[in-house]
Amino acid sequence: MPLKDCVFSPRDIRSSTRHSRTMDQQDNKIAVVGAGLVGAACACMLSRHGFAVDLFELRSDLRLSSKLSVGRSINLALSARGLHTLRLLGVADEILERHAIPMYARMIHNVDGRTEPIPYGASGQCIYSVGRKYLLELLLFRAERDDNVRLHFDHKLLRARFHQGSLEFSTPDRDAVTKSGYRAIIGCDGVFSRVRQDVMRCGRFDFEQKYIDHGYIELCIPAKDNEFQMAVNFLHIWPRGEFMMIALPNQDKSYTVTLFMPFEKFEALTTAEKILKFFETHFPDSIPLIGRESLIQTLTTVEVSSLASVKCSPYHVGGRGLLLGDAAHAMVPFYGQGMNCGFEDVSILDELFTALGTSDLEKPFETFSEVRREDAHAIVELALYNYIEMRHLVNSVWFRLRKKFDSSLHWMFPKFWVPLYTSVTFSRMKYSECISNRAWQDKVLRNSLRSIGLLALGVSLAYAASRMRINVRLH
Amino acid sequence: MPLKDCVFSPRDIRSSTRHSRTMDQQDNKIAVVGAGLVGAACACMLSRHGFAVDLFELRSDLRLSSKLSVGRSINLALSARGLHTLRLLGVADEILERHAIPMYARMIHNVDGRTEPIPYGASGQCIYSVGRKYLLELLLFRAERDDNVRLHFDHKLLRARFHQGSLEFSTPDRDAVTKSGYRAIIGCDGVFSRVRQDVMRCGRFDFEQKYIDHGYIELCIPAKDNEFQMAVNFLHIWPRGEFMMIALPNQDKSYTVTLFMPFEKFEALTTAEKILKFFETHFPDSIPLIGRESLIQTLTTVEVSSLASVKCSPYHVGGRGLLLGDAAHAMVPFYGQGMNCGFEDVSILDELFTALGTSDLEKPFETFSEVRREDAHAIVELALYNYIEMRHLVNSVWFRLRKKFDSSLHWMFPKFWVPLYTSVTFSRMKYSECISNRAWQDKVLRNSLRSIGLLALGVSLAYAASRMRINVRLH
Repeated sequence: MPLKDCVFSPRDIRSSTRHSRTMDQQDNKIAVVGAGLVGAACACMLSRHGFAVDLFELRSDLRLSSKLSVGRSINLALSARGLHTLRLLGVADEILERHAIPMYARMIHNVDGRTEPIPYGASGQCIYSVGRKYLLELLLFRAERDDNVRLHFDHKLLRARFHQGSLEFSTPDRDAVTKSGYRAIIGCDGVFSRVRQDVMRCGRFDFEQKYIDHGYIELCIPAKDNEFQMAVNFLHIWPRGEFMMIALPNQDKSYTVTLFMPFEKFEALTTAEKILKFFETHFPDSIPLIGRESLIQTLTTVEVSSLASVKCSPYHVGGRGLLLGDAAHAMVPFYGQGMNCGFEDVSILDELFTALGTSDLEKPFETFSEVRREDAHAIVELALYNYIEMRHLVNSVWFRLRKKFDSSLHWMFPKFWVPLYTSVTFSRMKYSECISNRAWQDKVLRNSLRSIGLLALGVSLAYAASRMRINVRLH
Repeated sequence: MPLKDCVFSPRDIRSSTRHSRTMDQQDNKIAVVGAGLVGAACACMLSRHGFAVDLFELRSDLRLSSKLSVGRSINLALSARGLHTLRLLGVADEILERHAIPMYARMIHNVDGRTEPIPYGASGQCIYSVGRKYLLELLLFRAERDDNVRLHFDHKLLRARFHQGSLEFSTPDRDAVTKSGYRAIIGCDGVFSRVRQDVMRCGRFDFEQKYIDHGYIELCIPAKDNEFQMAVNFLHIWPRGEFMMIALPNQDKSYTVTLFMPFEKFEALTTAEKILKFFETHFPDSIPLIGRESLIQTLTTVEVSSLASVKCSPYHVGGRGLLLGDAAHAMVPFYGQGMNCGFEDVSILDELFTALGTSDLEKPFETFSEVRREDAHAIVELALYNYIEMRHLVNSVWFRLRKKFDSSLHWMFPKFWVPLYTSVTFSRMKYSECISNRAWQDKVLRNSLRSIGLLALGVSLAYAASRMRINVRLH
């Protein structure tokens, strides 16, 4: 098996049948479906509370494959909420020290080639570009080192039965394998969650999946002479109103570039000439960086990916089932909060286990459902809104002014005035409170502007009146 | 097999393999999944356009079973849109003449026992109470008599593959049966549509399912001395603000009564005493009609059913797949439009086949998706709104006044002023236009009231002024 892109040694991968479980653990088993970022983190967190965890994954072990290579895979913007969970699991330092590229500001690329930075937060505050494959591998190793966790790859879920605590899978060897004896089944199996389909069968379950009319294609700005081709500690943005392009730096000094655009605009780019014309008009500075060949090759062959939001409620089935991460709340990627929100699910559940205990799982699960829904719905909406802001407003004067005003006020009163982006990205304030906090700020600002306006009018009138009096006296 | 409740003779049921298909028909096959009301009607309509139709149903042939008996099953309110489709299929007269009970008005039951009617429309306009089982049996016989239609019961859909034109079923005999060679697959398989799940796999598909916090339980007012126990040509309503009860007449002179209420209110009715107390307080006149025993028996044993809305978009998969009826747009039952809207889907598709032809199915399917979405979304919302109106407003003075005002204006200007309920129930006006028409009426009414108010003020002032002048002259 090719392992050239894997940052870990294959010898690190332990057999998943290495230890037998005690009787106590047999009675305290939880099945986690989906060994993605949230599933792996959830398994490690559950182990902290004494659960014996079986972590099932549809796909093969990605640590044995080079398919999702580190260099060109999607990279993610890690921020406060995600980091908090990674700290909880004891893996944050390793990531930050060795594999995260700090991004302190957006770097705006104008059509004429000028670039200018807009900082994300106060001095020193940054988000981190991290490769998805690296992060997942790290979490899988972390899970595997945990004696309470067992990994099961190539397990395709056919049916989850919450009340029986059993799951049916198909594997490469067998059509149907039943695993049973679980106190609870937790679905961390992503936006098209199979577990969620079975939650739907369990009674009243509100569900919404909504696509936007825009899709995306990933491009690459490769390293040149083993160096980044653009300033490194930035998230590069080419905002163009109806569409936009962004780029995040990778460990191998390449950039993953993503072009977001209405589907019909992609469909219009049918020939090499049209593609080049389009890039020359809108993103001229990116052409030499990406390379003409690569640009045309990608845009003529790769299928445009779509973007969906998912909201649902409730997240739990009594004390027997729970949905976390994208399975519960998928969002468009424009606030960089998809993974962070999924990781935050894990830390919130951890806090609820600590506060409410684990003898009765219904209490923590139900509380999770209640406290998390409002916040998940809020960030799903914020993520949609931020696409408009990134495409339109980053380039507008009003946006810049407001950013500067917010930053200054935040600098003067760091607790009193927290800008929206700062509260979402650099704090663990509830997402719904981030929104209400912003609404309050908008109101304060409106009222202040009105007062200033009135004051200015008053001063002007007083001045005019005094001038008139002087004139009257003079005449 | 017990057939006592079946109004048709078992000899009427033909074998479904009675005729072989010509080569032309083999190339023009359509699979309809779900032999409910909409599926059966759709199959008959498709046959009119020369398609060879295979109609698949999960359940056994209900004509051979007495499970869903005519007397006590859910009855439906048939109105203009549904009737239009039944006329198209040549079965409307039989239903209207032999099996439909006209309801000309709502009969409001006050807590003190007083009753008063509120007409549905102009004199003679009515909706019809029809038994679901009877209607379905009639449509199944109509489909079966059609040489182009074949019925397949006990076929549980496992997977629909639109682009291959194939379906996989499980049957009582076999785990997996594949049927193939279909130009298109049409899902008429209801609110929890299996076909829709496969539409979801085909790309960007918006979907929303939303439950309301209220559930329902069905009760029965049996016939007494072979007579109806209440005035027959009415839909009886007990509006009680937060909850309500309704009753529709059945062919066997019983009434199917439905109590709609918040789930927690149902959950509070834990004992016979509480149930009787509740009915004595809110529905005293219904107790002798339903009977104490039956009331307590039903409310202590029957599970409360839930109510959901479903919206989705698009309804089609190119020219290969389509969703109709509840599979595309399920609604709460408060406008009596669920079945009527589903039947209207069938007549609209029929019109599109006639207008656009059937050589390329993508055109009619895509147009259906486009023209129908807005209207389906509109009636889903109207149905939710009408629950509030039925519970609260039917009993309010303003509602009565507005009804009378609308009826008078409609009587004077039948084309110019069509009340909302009339346009939804007694016309085939697009649902979305029904709403915009109502919005326009509200605006006219507001402006008129304002003008009348100003006029009255003017007249009063003029009168006061003239009185003052007279007074001045007199003094």
